[in-house]
Amino acid sequence: MDQINLTPIGVIRTPYAEPKDIPIQGIFKGQVEGCAKLKPEFTPGLKDLDGFSHAILLYHFHRSSKEQLEARPFLESVDHGIFAIRSPHRPNHIGLSIVKTKSIQDNKIYFTEVDMLDGTPLLDIKPYSKHFDQREDVISGWMDKHFIDGKIPDQTIL
Amino acid sequence: MDQINLTPIGVIRTPYAEPKDIPIQGIFKGQVEGCAKLKPEFTPGLKDLDGFSHAILLYHFHRSSKEQLEARPFLESVDHGIFAIRSPHRPNHIGLSIVKTKSIQDNKIYFTEVDMLDGTPLLDIKPYSKHFDQREDVISGWMDKHFIDGKIPDQTIL
Repeated sequence: MDQINLTPIGVIRTPYAEPKDIPIQGIFKGQVEGCAKLKPEFTPGLKDLDGFSHAILLYHFHRSSKEQLEARPFLESVDHGIFAIRSPHRPNHIGLSIVKTKSIQDNKIYFTEVDMLDGTPLLDIKPYSKHFDQREDVISGWMDKHFIDGKIPDQTIL
Repeated sequence: MDQINLTPIGVIRTPYAEPKDIPIQGIFKGQVEGCAKLKPEFTPGLKDLDGFSHAILLYHFHRSSKEQLEARPFLESVDHGIFAIRSPHRPNHIGLSIVKTKSIQDNKIYFTEVDMLDGTPLLDIKPYSKHFDQREDVISGWMDKHFIDGKIPDQTIL
């Protein structure tokens, strides 16, 4: 299968300069603000995204150079397959976050629920849809035992 | 910003040989079955994914060669920005689907809620988490008016 070449459409600016500062998922530090800044030529692609409360950002885990097939996520004491965790050290190093859109100004999306490093290359933006992206009766494997009664651990991701 | 080179980790097999057969989203033809077949060397990465009811598949829209910044999705009579719709004709041509896992056997994930073309190059798999990927009070922009009272249109995506 052929190689696929991607070119970033912009960059993500956040207050997180180092992995140790980042929450496991952005919703756990919900008030922190970030900005996805597109290259100006992509600005027309943002039309009507402001009608959506949330967006899906796809980006490149640019600070990870290693690739593991099994790894231990922060919450766990055992290893899991890389496709059962959200670690950056994965084949193709693509990251995915759902963020809450605050405002869109020209080529900039200001958002909360931030969990990316500052300077992260942005690959794509998709509208988050309650009709396409929500499911009922979701079972979340090894994660569920860490979130009983809505308790949320305050740890970092890397 | 530098170019990023990806190599597919496998291929997605589905009953959909042509775009005209595909539902707008996989949940609209929920019983159709597909299979994500990994290259054998990635099999260890699937460990414990079977504990999750759903998975997120990231893949390459390999049949799209064009890139539009505004386009008209099937349900609409007006154009929207490419980052406010799920069209394949987007910068970097990355597709995202949430699928329902039926079983995992060796290097193969059998799933339903299929909306990809047969032969689609697979880029990544992430566990779908109700703790990370679900939001309350979601507003879905131009989409919401098409789904009033749970009514679902039976149309194709391309």
